[in-house]
Amino acid sequence: MTNERKKISVIGSGFTGATAAFLFAQKELGNVVLVDIPQNENPTKGKALDILESGPILGFNTSVKGTSSYEDTRDSDIVIITAGIARKPGMSRDDLVQTNQQVMQSVTKEIVKFSPNAILLVLTNPVDAMTYTVFQASGFPKERVIGQSGVLDTARFRTFVAEALSLAPQDITGFVLGGHGDDMVPLIRYSYAGGIPIDTLLSPSEIEAIVERTRKGGAEIVNLLGNGSAYYAPAAALVEMAEAILNDQKRVLPSIAYLEGEYGFDGIYIGVPTVLGAKGIEQIIELELSDEEKSAFSKSAESVRSVMNSLRN
Amino acid sequence: MTNERKKISVIGSGFTGATAAFLFAQKELGNVVLVDIPQNENPTKGKALDILESGPILGFNTSVKGTSSYEDTRDSDIVIITAGIARKPGMSRDDLVQTNQQVMQSVTKEIVKFSPNAILLVLTNPVDAMTYTVFQASGFPKERVIGQSGVLDTARFRTFVAEALSLAPQDITGFVLGGHGDDMVPLIRYSYAGGIPIDTLLSPSEIEAIVERTRKGGAEIVNLLGNGSAYYAPAAALVEMAEAILNDQKRVLPSIAYLEGEYGFDGIYIGVPTVLGAKGIEQIIELELSDEEKSAFSKSAESVRSVMNSLRN
Amino acid sequence: MTNERKKISVIGSGFTGATAAFLFAQKELGNVVLVDIPQNENPTKGKALDILESGPILGFNTSVKGTSSYEDTRDSDIVIITAGIARKPGMSRDDLVQTNQQVMQSVTKEIVKFSPNAILLVLTNPVDAMTYTVFQASGFPKERVIGQSGVLDTARFRTFVAEALSLAPQDITGFVLGGHGDDMVPLIRYSYAGGIPIDTLLSPSEIEAIVERTRKGGAEIVNLLGNGSAYYAPAAALVEMAEAILNDQKRVLPSIAYLEGEYGFDGIYIGVPTVLGAKGIEQIIELELSDEEKSAFSKSAESVRSVMNSLRN
Amino acid sequence: MTNERKKISVIGSGFTGATAAFLFAQKELGNVVLVDIPQNENPTKGKALDILESGPILGFNTSVKGTSSYEDTRDSDIVIITAGIARKPGMSRDDLVQTNQQVMQSVTKEIVKFSPNAILLVLTNPVDAMTYTVFQASGFPKERVIGQSGVLDTARFRTFVAEALSLAPQDITGFVLGGHGDDMVPLIRYSYAGGIPIDTLLSPSEIEAIVERTRKGGAEIVNLLGNGSAYYAPAAALVEMAEAILNDQKRVLPSIAYLEGEYGFDGIYIGVPTVLGAKGIEQIIELELSDEEKSAFSKSAESVRSVMNSLRN
Repeated sequence: MTNERKKISVIGSGFTGATAAFLFAQKELGNVVLVDIPQNENPTKGKALDILESGPILGFNTSVKGTSSYEDTRDSDIVIITAGIARKPGMSRDDLVQTNQQVMQSVTKEIVKFSPNAILLVLTNPVDAMTYTVFQASGFPKERVIGQSGVLDTARFRTFVAEALSLAPQDITGFVLGGHGDDMVPLIRYSYAGGIPIDTLLSPSEIEAIVERTRKGGAEIVNLLGNGSAYYAPAAALVEMAEAILNDQKRVLPSIAYLEGEYGFDGIYIGVPTVLGAKGIEQIIELELSDEEKSAFSKSAESVRSVMNSLRN
Repeated sequence: MTNERKKISVIGSGFTGATAAFLFAQKELGNVVLVDIPQNENPTKGKALDILESGPILGFNTSVKGTSSYEDTRDSDIVIITAGIARKPGMSRDDLVQTNQQVMQSVTKEIVKFSPNAILLVLTNPVDAMTYTVFQASGFPKERVIGQSGVLDTARFRTFVAEALSLAPQDITGFVLGGHGDDMVPLIRYSYAGGIPIDTLLSPSEIEAIVERTRKGGAEIVNLLGNGSAYYAPAAALVEMAEAILNDQKRVLPSIAYLEGEYGFDGIYIGVPTVLGAKGIEQIIELELSDEEKSAFSKSAESVRSVMNSLRN
Repeated sequence: MTNERKKISVIGSGFTGATAAFLFAQKELGNVVLVDIPQNENPTKGKALDILESGPILGFNTSVKGTSSYEDTRDSDIVIITAGIARKPGMSRDDLVQTNQQVMQSVTKEIVKFSPNAILLVLTNPVDAMTYTVFQASGFPKERVIGQSGVLDTARFRTFVAEALSLAPQDITGFVLGGHGDDMVPLIRYSYAGGIPIDTLLSPSEIEAIVERTRKGGAEIVNLLGNGSAYYAPAAALVEMAEAILNDQKRVLPSIAYLEGEYGFDGIYIGVPTVLGAKGIEQIIELELSDEEKSAFSKSAESVRSVMNSLRN
Repeated sequence: MTNERKKISVIGSGFTGATAAFLFAQKELGNVVLVDIPQNENPTKGKALDILESGPILGFNTSVKGTSSYEDTRDSDIVIITAGIARKPGMSRDDLVQTNQQVMQSVTKEIVKFSPNAILLVLTNPVDAMTYTVFQASGFPKERVIGQSGVLDTARFRTFVAEALSLAPQDITGFVLGGHGDDMVPLIRYSYAGGIPIDTLLSPSEIEAIVERTRKGGAEIVNLLGNGSAYYAPAAALVEMAEAILNDQKRVLPSIAYLEGEYGFDGIYIGVPTVLGAKGIEQIIELELSDEEKSAFSKSAESVRSVMNSLRN
């Protein structure tokens, strides 16, 4: 029992990684280490220093360190993995998968060497397969390897519903199963405004438009930015999941979790409702699904399996 | 007397502008409008939307709108100006000054048209001369046109002192007069750790090294990033000043203010200690300076004057 | 358009009033005026000063004033009414009603004189009838006179469900209609844990026990304290409703609202789901009720009517 | 390395203890145990439950438990001691000292039994002698037994200076040495408004009035309340010190610390500037004092010694 600060390592100092580091510092959840490859060491140090210099103004008091050495991540409580490349024009999906698979493998090897007890939280796309890759590469128990997609997907859904109804976003909830983005399975009957099912407040076509916009939510930002992808909301999603773990909050949040029989699937990482606490995924919540929902979930799982099949052994 | 939200417009959707918008939203200080030129309209909308989509997770409830139309800034309570270009290799200082002068003039004209009662807060470099330009172009009373430099300079100073002494940054204070960066005049005798003058805790050479690092603090980040300049701490500085104004906090913060006799200067915008509240700069605090400090302040003012002289009429 | 702070007056400096003042100050929602009768002026000033003296430590920056003069409440944006007596042993319900009716009438007269545009938020028991009394005495439009009961009742319900399921309280929602406490009509089908209906997670008998404990939630605290009643959660409930109004949040929160036809009732103040924003109650949300729910709501309304009938003309 | 929550026990469920528990919960610094004697068990449980029920509204997620059993404090990281009696009319100072000495001894014995590694933070008056008593009774190393007085005294001082200058309280700092209240030794030369020494902003008589009001700050509240003493600001002071320790913040805060040679004193607990971090008092900062300050400090120390002499062996 000590009063030492928690330690949070963020792998990948791109916009999402840096924004996550900024939010971790603001919330004083622990000391932050921002890691990137040696070629990016200086920009990584620059971002970390800039964040640190905002501390006296914003009133936080944690260290924020930029580095390319995994030594600096030693004894992390949680490690956030945002490293990897984005799909570029002309790149096949398999190329993307295999490149990021290699990144996950090499990154995980280093993380595990220095923080054998950490919990790993993965954002890199395609996130279901990449979380699986990290799980295999780490040798960690399944509850300590977790992927993010549903918190972000529902945040977008909640934003659009709040806008449609002119209500506070914090009073809107959403619920998804399955893969990220296009593969998302929204459970509208578990989505509410102030506790009232949204299908009593919005028409089927309004809901369908919102679901469709949510599915394409990542692409909407990519198209607007022209160069790069979303990072504010993805970083916020990572930090919410990490906070639930670091502060043992027993939050009910959607996670990409390893299924061993739940929902009728086995040996696959896919989005399901979970309880996040000190041990990572402390529970997978199983819901009874309608036939239609089961079928959509199966289709989503097939899509995830198909990506997994393009992973190299 | 109404309960309408405050309205905050941020001109320039680069990293600093977008980070400031993110912080304004997180602090729920008001509805945020992020403005850039028509060519950047889509990326501006993309950043605003991404910030908005983090709201359900971070728990804030404000609108964040990206736009290229100044109509959307109508009736702003405060307008933050981060627009303008950074100095590029081969560009003369005069070219930089005159280009940003034109940007300030056209931006200010639009702001003033829609928000004649707003308070204007300027970050664009060279910030002393650019604040002066906005002052002239706006026709606003001096207390409603304010520049930022000292909050950032002292944040860096405080970070470095906190590190040297292994103490909490929030217990370190710093104090500067004069221009930004190289022209900064640090008043070490008004700089403390937990109220204890730092010159009793650090050696003269340690202090000199910290002052020198602070002067070059912007360049340190520029050199590390390789491409671009600091934005986390600058955005935090802008938001702290804006919060003092929007919430009428009567904070004692360094501002770039228009002097009319104070400290023996007239007709110049330069960094001095001020009280920020609902009316903008509500007071300029005059300190008695030593001969050495006076001389350093004069030199800093000359440097600011020299930039002002390169403004086109 | 100015940057003046909001003004919040709290009538009644007992534990709930003082705790509400403390929370308003902590959240920097505006300047706070704590009002009580002349005989209590000194204790009221003492509590206000003690709260104010915590400001430099907790980092808030608002004025907190204790007073017995309604002049000090002039131009309040919102006025919270906690004044009145608690039922004492041997006191008939009618005596309680009529005593607090007189308190509401005299207090409202003073409030209205100095703040004709304020929104009034009532906590005094029996709260449905007392909100009605304030409505009549003020002559204010119905959307600006609001009572609190459902936010507190659901907070207790959420606490008990969170405990039963070992989940984060922030992921539990509850939903009530009707009067306060014993008259509360819980809508279990609109109560969730992480979006999942709680009746799929808890047995009917577990839910019934939680509902029963919630109904008696006020009495549970009264019995434990031995002398006095709950004030932390009631104050938090008031502050949440006030924040929704002061920051125009469009929150979906249960309020005691004046019905004119909604849910089949007319001319009665009773708990229903509402949208709270700058104008007060901006919307009453009507849900389709089952026959059983309708019957429970009618019984609750009868109970409220019976208290209203004991009000003196 | 685990993600378990910190554990904070608060001994004494009076207003200060309960308010401290409320602030600890709001700040989510750890799980809170509120302890009082068996006769007060029910009110203690009532306060704890009421605080817990505010959690879903205020958005915190910690357990808050009321108890009379020290078993429940097992493995606390920090224990706050507010137990003891207040001086009543007709009671001699020695009676007060000896009664509270017995309370400290019995309380400390229980605490130490269950939390041999905790840090102890004492508020009970006369606080210098009571901290010494706890130190002796615990057998803990001196850095883990700490008393509170200076944070509260300077908070009051800062409030009064902020009011006199119409400036933000967060920009005012104060500095005290020595005993609590009447025995306080203010170091005006280390007290600032926005970094500017307050003796350049206020006249000697204004400062003297503020110092005098600060010395009598506890009595001012006692006199106003008529029945009881201050609790909001004292609780905030305790929580700030505890937060510095629990989050290893290296804050520079005045503490009642055990001197072994520092400032020329030995074997006495008295107020000095300290650095608070994970280990408790990690450093005592020694300042060079003027002859006048030395003399005032000696007088204050004599006063503390005189109380210590009335402790029974």
